[in-house]
Amino acid sequence: MSETRSEISQLGEFGLIDRISKKINLQNPSSIKGIGDDAAVLDGGEDYTLISTDLLAEGIHFDLSYTPIQHLGYKAVSVNVSDIAAMNGKAEQIVVSLALSNRFSVEAVDALYDGIRAACEHYKVDLVGGDTTSSRSGLVISITVIGKVRKERIVYRSGAKPNDIICVTGDLGAAYLGLQILEREKEVFKSNPGMQPSLDKYEYLVGRQLKSIARTDIIFDLEEAGVRPTSMIDISDGLASELFHIGKNSNVGVRIYEDKIPVDELTYNTAALEFKIDPVTCALNGGEDYELLFTIPQTDLEKLKNHPDIHTIGYVHDKANEHTLITKQGNAVALKAQGWNHFG
Amino acid sequence: MSETRSEISQLGEFGLIDRISKKINLQNPSSIKGIGDDAAVLDGGEDYTLISTDLLAEGIHFDLSYTPIQHLGYKAVSVNVSDIAAMNGKAEQIVVSLALSNRFSVEAVDALYDGIRAACEHYKVDLVGGDTTSSRSGLVISITVIGKVRKERIVYRSGAKPNDIICVTGDLGAAYLGLQILEREKEVFKSNPGMQPSLDKYEYLVGRQLKSIARTDIIFDLEEAGVRPTSMIDISDGLASELFHIGKNSNVGVRIYEDKIPVDELTYNTAALEFKIDPVTCALNGGEDYELLFTIPQTDLEKLKNHPDIHTIGYVHDKANEHTLITKQGNAVALKAQGWNHFG
Repeated sequence: MSETRSEISQLGEFGLIDRISKKINLQNPSSIKGIGDDAAVLDGGEDYTLISTDLLAEGIHFDLSYTPIQHLGYKAVSVNVSDIAAMNGKAEQIVVSLALSNRFSVEAVDALYDGIRAACEHYKVDLVGGDTTSSRSGLVISITVIGKVRKERIVYRSGAKPNDIICVTGDLGAAYLGLQILEREKEVFKSNPGMQPSLDKYEYLVGRQLKSIARTDIIFDLEEAGVRPTSMIDISDGLASELFHIGKNSNVGVRIYEDKIPVDELTYNTAALEFKIDPVTCALNGGEDYELLFTIPQTDLEKLKNHPDIHTIGYVHDKANEHTLITKQGNAVALKAQGWNHFG
Repeated sequence: MSETRSEISQLGEFGLIDRISKKINLQNPSSIKGIGDDAAVLDGGEDYTLISTDLLAEGIHFDLSYTPIQHLGYKAVSVNVSDIAAMNGKAEQIVVSLALSNRFSVEAVDALYDGIRAACEHYKVDLVGGDTTSSRSGLVISITVIGKVRKERIVYRSGAKPNDIICVTGDLGAAYLGLQILEREKEVFKSNPGMQPSLDKYEYLVGRQLKSIARTDIIFDLEEAGVRPTSMIDISDGLASELFHIGKNSNVGVRIYEDKIPVDELTYNTAALEFKIDPVTCALNGGEDYELLFTIPQTDLEKLKNHPDIHTIGYVHDKANEHTLITKQGNAVALKAQGWNHFG
């Protein structure tokens, strides 16, 4: 046994992944791409087979005091399906493993699977297997998703080219604010259990946190429009962190414009007026929006310009890892990737 | 919210799986077989793609006070690879998800991955992805394995036919006794921490518990011999439980002979003389041997009879779910499947 003890929190999640993946060599010819993108890529004959996995742990990723367990099941599927979408693929199957303590009843497990099944129906994904076991404490949900993409349609994080246009779907920051609201109401409830939280006003924000939807519709629309992005990633850790991933993997830099970042009006007002935080910071570093971030050649811009839910926010340049935000006032500031450090 | 609360322990693991799988309908044409065998089966063009997943939770499946963490990594891969072998397939890729508390150092994670990588090299499997996150307490390892099998070579639990011969590989019961020894030494150590446990004498048994090996060699040998079993399953929950699975899925009964069940001499003596338990009970209900149980047509018996590690233990008959053990004294007794109930 080694005498040294290094803390995982010092490495952080990305440091740990780097450390693990550095020692890995792929030996099977069917393993096309391993760790380092939204999904692993396997040779599936005519198509590529895509594999991705996400683990959600109680107390870290979710709080059952305000998360309806059906929604949790739905979200656990969505975050996995989103990883397949980020490769421009279509999810087809999932396997679900649960570890749960005896705090959970059969009815709770039923409700969790009701949510999982509802998501499966929405995404047309089959639940084909899993493992269910007990845990000493709490609930852990581990889902692996299997998807497909035609070989010529696959999109990695690594294909962004100078002058490409950067696009994001939907709006950003709402899921983060939804979480802030839920946490605030929990504190209010704790100090005054008789008070019913009034979340109606924040329905959109809370819904973005609790009922995440993977943008499989965008994958369909891109194909319809005849556009294959040069790079793509889903926004799970916040726009800034994802831009850094694209920059690092594509060996490019990005320049984005604050006034182009799509932020919903309710998100904007709740952030600025109630929480006194910068709405753009929520969009850049909030995470859990599960929107798609992708780059396209300028020549494809015309094909997407009428899409109501795809927004251009900037462009790619050749100065590797020089990532700039142009503020509303016209100042150029260096982008910072914050991401999450659950080990912190 | 429902008012009823039913305990999972009353349903048990198999009851819970039945409850979940009953509500599932497969909708994708590529989903050939879902829940209910050792692995899910997907149409992979020329071959079938096999998917299986296993979750190991600290305090339930392993005890780090006597389990070297490298071995745990190795075992977590083995139990997954074993599921693919049980479909007559070859594992090719794994994805690994970890949830771990800050009790674990970077060095511990390194050691865990050393074991995972050693297993990957042994089985020629690529680690292609995963998710690493923190947990509130303890370690959870969730691995999903992806494998392949030529369509005409696949073996389900459901193909056993009357008069087929029942075969098992290796020997049974040793892993269970290894666990008993480790638990005993732990108690000794707790009451007298100065005492060093002497496990040398039990090396084989302890090794069978801590360093599980999937029988991928047997899959190779079966193909070499030109034998395709009519049904197959790996022995994770004990021989009796697995025979019940084959019986239920194939709609047949089995008749096995106590004196044919392969039990290693050290297993036998340790069970009978030290622990005063029936060695055959260990083999029938012990579990975690990760040997293979399969059935073959009588006409294939000749091809395997010289294999040193394949043992015939009985035969299949047409009385569905009538499972009998013929004791050494020649008495016929009904087999009981005990299996594990972690929720108990």
